[in-house]
Order: sequence, then structure tokens, then C-alpha cells
Amino acid sequence: MASGGGENELEVSNKQVIFKNYVSGFPKESDMYLNTNGTIKLKVPEGSNGLLVKNLYLPCDPYMCNLMKKSINTKMFTIFFPSANMTRFDVAKVVDSGNPKFKKGDLVWGKTGWEEYSLITDVQNLLKIEHTDVPLSYYSGILGMPGSTAYSGFYEVCSPKKGEYVFISAASGAVGQLVGQFAKLLGCYVVGSAGSKEKVDLLKNKFKFDEAFNYKEEPDLVAALKRYFPEGIDIYFENVGGKMLDAVLLNMRTHGRIAVCGMISQYNLEKLEGVHNLVHMIYKRVHMKAFVFSDYYHLYPKFLDLVLPHIAEGKIVYLEDIAEGLESGPAALVGLFSGLNVGKQVVLVAQE
Amino acid sequence: MASGGGENELEVSNKQVIFKNYVSGFPKESDMYLNTNGTIKLKVPEGSNGLLVKNLYLPCDPYMCNLMKKSINTKMFTIFFPSANMTRFDVAKVVDSGNPKFKKGDLVWGKTGWEEYSLITDVQNLLKIEHTDVPLSYYSGILGMPGSTAYSGFYEVCSPKKGEYVFISAASGAVGQLVGQFAKLLGCYVVGSAGSKEKVDLLKNKFKFDEAFNYKEEPDLVAALKRYFPEGIDIYFENVGGKMLDAVLLNMRTHGRIAVCGMISQYNLEKLEGVHNLVHMIYKRVHMKAFVFSDYYHLYPKFLDLVLPHIAEGKIVYLEDIAEGLESGPAALVGLFSGLNVGKQVVLVAQE
Repeated sequence: MASGGGENELEVSNKQVIFKNYVSGFPKESDMYLNTNGTIKLKVPEGSNGLLVKNLYLPCDPYMCNLMKKSINTKMFTIFFPSANMTRFDVAKVVDSGNPKFKKGDLVWGKTGWEEYSLITDVQNLLKIEHTDVPLSYYSGILGMPGSTAYSGFYEVCSPKKGEYVFISAASGAVGQLVGQFAKLLGCYVVGSAGSKEKVDLLKNKFKFDEAFNYKEEPDLVAALKRYFPEGIDIYFENVGGKMLDAVLLNMRTHGRIAVCGMISQYNLEKLEGVHNLVHMIYKRVHMKAFVFSDYYHLYPKFLDLVLPHIAEGKIVYLEDIAEGLESGPAALVGLFSGLNVGKQVVLVAQE
Repeated sequence: MASGGGENELEVSNKQVIFKNYVSGFPKESDMYLNTNGTIKLKVPEGSNGLLVKNLYLPCDPYMCNLMKKSINTKMFTIFFPSANMTRFDVAKVVDSGNPKFKKGDLVWGKTGWEEYSLITDVQNLLKIEHTDVPLSYYSGILGMPGSTAYSGFYEVCSPKKGEYVFISAASGAVGQLVGQFAKLLGCYVVGSAGSKEKVDLLKNKFKFDEAFNYKEEPDLVAALKRYFPEGIDIYFENVGGKMLDAVLLNMRTHGRIAVCGMISQYNLEKLEGVHNLVHMIYKRVHMKAFVFSDYYHLYPKFLDLVLPHIAEGKIVYLEDIAEGLESGPAALVGLFSGLNVGKQVVLVAQE
């Protein structure tokens, strides 16, 4: 039931990040702007079973680039609409509830908006945050969409076994850093690639990968992978596409698996890069599967059971790059595409 | 036990097709020659548990092209060796047996040689032919390797459901014609592509595909597929690769599956063609899996249970293109790569 009367009927200022119009390559800061003129009533409309929430943490994720393109006509994504606020997976606090499953003060994560307050009418995929003995921002990352993505991609798509050889591209990102740690916990040999010395150091020293390399310093990716995987690759967790995928295909082992999580190297291109070595899938009977975490929503409780104790014991660590204030959102998002972030990029909108 | 004495100790002439040396593109007839000087003793050597067989039918398959390339360094295939007889899956009759599982007169299919008689020392993957109320040549095709490939590729790799939209390239070939008929029996909508009017007519009239088209007459494959699949493709059975795969990727439905059986368009190329649209796998969460039938050997009895009654009732038909005589083998094999064969290409070496 919506609570009636009192302070919740206040109409307050509600800053929003507005998406201007469809982009063709990577987005620029100028493709978004901060609208400071909006207001919102802190109350769920009469008869609605939705929620009015205060947004706390907004994650920036590479795939958001695709939501800004008109050409992506797909049922996978609700794309962004020109001149509208952007909606994505965020951490928020319930200010008013018209839904019996949620009450004022509840913390939730799920699809809300890039704004200070959001009215959420579809609460179906909104999850209540039950475990608060971790940083709340984690529900934008390790315990939210990227974490679920790493979990379902690695455990469900890759069917990993102890001792297998695992390669992860964009390995210091929100998803990659976790996949690598999952793989290490299982007893795999893990190598990651990233785009700077700082990130390579992180992979080796903070995330305890067996090896890591800076792909920008490798003139021959096929040779680099052969060096790190003389026996070949059993599992490739794909975040970049293009030349890296081509090099990987020449280094896969028989019955190897490729989990296609993203292909960030392609999102900026007018003409997509050709991948030439697919025929090698046949010689090695490779299995390549693209996925999104929402296909595995039902596994979320199982994922938490696995990951929460590991976080508590310090066996899994997570690195965040937190930008402060909604106004810093566009720059933080755009920074992903030039690799500026180190770890999961999050925007702090408001303290709880 | 090897039977001793008598006519089996005769040494007879044994014509062989000899593979000259590694090729780079498609093989030419001149890459093989018929050696008429060889002889063989029609008896298993003392102490061996092998078989001496008379070869009856040799199948010609597109993947044999890859066995002729030095560059294919893989555990998938035993490649052909220069100046040696070629070995592949054939239908044969046991002339002498050193193995308790087989006796003189048994019909078998499995790996033997492109020659009149073969001594088979590894009988592990040799299957006894139990059902002889079908043409014996069928064990080179519908009941042999191509049939098992179609079965495991369609039922195991594609997880098909009634009513789904199925596309098959090189659809009139040894494997494609069967996949299409399996899909029709399951209640799928089936479209095939082939390279001539004659083959397109076969697909529609003999194999009862819903639609078929000549890819050589389609200037825009993406548009052609959109025309035949306005709702998109659920299952693509991939035999050709390259441009066709690129066009398919733009036409897949969400959670679509691609069984990668072969990529014949790539086998002739010095530089492999680029496939540009892999990023669309992500938007549609496409699953692409390469396979070989031998990964599914254990399903062979289940396959026979399904297919034999359908053959008996005329619900599945099979078209063969039979070349007569071992000496016609090289031309028959080479003809595959220019699309000369109509249906499964087989070489009749000897009548039973």
C-alpha cells in the first residue's frame, strides 16, 4: 500500500542524466547532459504497485554503449530513447512503496534510472538487498549485474573443471576480475589481458592471476597466447572480440569453450572487424555461447551463497572506481571506452 | 583366431589410391594416383587381432580436403600422409578375422583404406552391420558417418523444438539432406540453400523442404534470408561458413543455435574470409557449437532405432551419387569441391 500524506508528498528537485540522441561509435560526454530542472513527488501514485526509490549507486557498463545505438534492433535490450533519462541496473533505497513485497527503507537493486529519484512501475526484476555487511556499492558490481554475469558465464556457460587453462580478456574490468578469481578458486590456471601496466599489475598482485599481459605491447597476439598457453586454452572468457578472438581461435584446445560476454573492441566501429579463424572451431570442436546474466536470474541465490562467504574471508576481492555525484556520470561512462577506469566503474549518487 | 591355410593365404593384387603430397587449397585429381602394383595376403598376420577386409563402398566427404593439408595440426583428425594410401570411413566385408567379435563374411563400416583390400589393426571404432534390408551403400551415407553427423548435430547440438525455423546450407549434400528431413519430421519450418537449380528442385520436391534457394543467384544473402525467415532463424546447420554465416548472424532469433558441421567455402582459401557479424551473437545470445559425429558414437544405436523405420516407411529418402570403380575415386572426391555431385558421393569399389 502507498503510505499516505506527510513528508512523502513533498515534491523535490530530481536531477537526471538525459540521453540526447543515438550514437554510432562510442558515446561522448556531449551525447548526454544533466537536466537540473526536473522535480518528482516522493510518493507512489494512488493505485500503483510500484516503488518510489532514491538512487544510491549507478554502475557504468560497456554494453550501455550498445543501448545508445539505433541499429541494435533486438529483444535483448530495452535501448535508450532520445531525450529521455537513461535506465539501467542500480542500487536504490525505497522511499515509498505501493507493493506488498517492499517497504520504505528497503534497499534494492535492479532497473532504475540515471537520476536522483525514480518511480519504478515494473518491480518484477527488482531484488531486495538482504546482506548489508558488505559495501552497498557491491550491488552495482560484484553482487549485482557484473557479478551475476561472471558467475553464470563462468560456471554455467563454460562448465569449468579443475586444472583447466583459462584466458580472460579485459580481465581487470567489472566482470573479468571476478571470472579470474572464480577460476583460481576452482584450481584453474588463469591468464588475463588488459590495456595498461597498472591493470596487469593488479591482475597479478591483487587478483592473483597466474599471469597477465598488456595486449597493447604484444605485436603478435597469437604468439603471446602460445607463450602463456603452450598446451592451449580450455576456456576463453570473451569481453573484447576482433583480433583477440582471432588469436584465441588458433590457440584453443579440443572441446574448448568460449563464453561471449562482450566484444568491446567492436562497439566503436562503423564496419565490424572480420574474424578469420572460425574454421578452427571445427578442428577443435569449440563451443561458443553468447549470454546475458538475466537468462540465469534463477541462480542469483546460489551465486550469493557462493560469493558472500568468499568476500567475508577475503578470498575474493573486488576493485571499484567510484565517481562522486550524478553529474560525473557521463564522464565516468565515456571513460570506460578509453580504458580510464581501473576496476568496476560506479557513480555514487547519494549516501544511504 | 585367424583362420589358417587355404585360399585366404593367396596373395592378390590390391589397387590403392595413393595421396601424393599435402595440398593448400582444394585437392586436384593429380594430387592422387592409382597404384596398381601392390599386392596383399588375404590373411590376418599370426597373432594379430585385426581384420582383413574387402572394401565395398568408399564415401567422399568434404572434410577429407582438410586431411590433405599439412597446416591442420589437430587431434581431431588423423591426417593423410604423403605417398600413402588414404584411410577413411568405408563399408567392407570381412575376409579374415583375428578378432573374436568379427567373423569371415561379416559386413562392417568404419575406418579402412582407399584400396581393394585393407588390413585393419585397430578395430575399436569398427561397427558390424546388422541391418541389411537397406542398400549396403547406405552405410557410407545415411547409416554411416554422414547420417550420424546429421543426427548428432541436429538432435544433440541444436536441441530442436517443434515449430522452430531451421536453415541448412549445402542442404542437398550427404548431411544436409538428412538434417532437413529430420527437421521436417519434427515439425519445423525448413529452408535449404544449394548451388544449382537441380539441387534446389531436389530439396523442394524430393526432400520436401518448405523452401530452398540457389545461393549463387542471390546478390544479397542477408535479404534472401530475411525473405525466407521474416521471423528469424532458430537453428542454422552450418556447412559452408564465410559470407553465408555472416548473413545468418544478422538473421538469428534470440537463443538461436548454430551447429558448425563444416565450412566448405573456407577450405580452398589461402587467407580465410573474415566473419564480421559475430557481435550479433551477443544481442541474440546465440549458441554456436562445432562438433564431429565421433563425439556421439554412443548414440549410434539410438540413431538406428530412429532412422531405420523411417527409411522402411519411405518417410526419409536418401540420394546417392555412385561412381563405379576405385579408379574413379579421385575424380569423385575432387568433384565435391566444385559441387558436381548430386547427393551423397560414394565410390563403389566392389560388389559384395
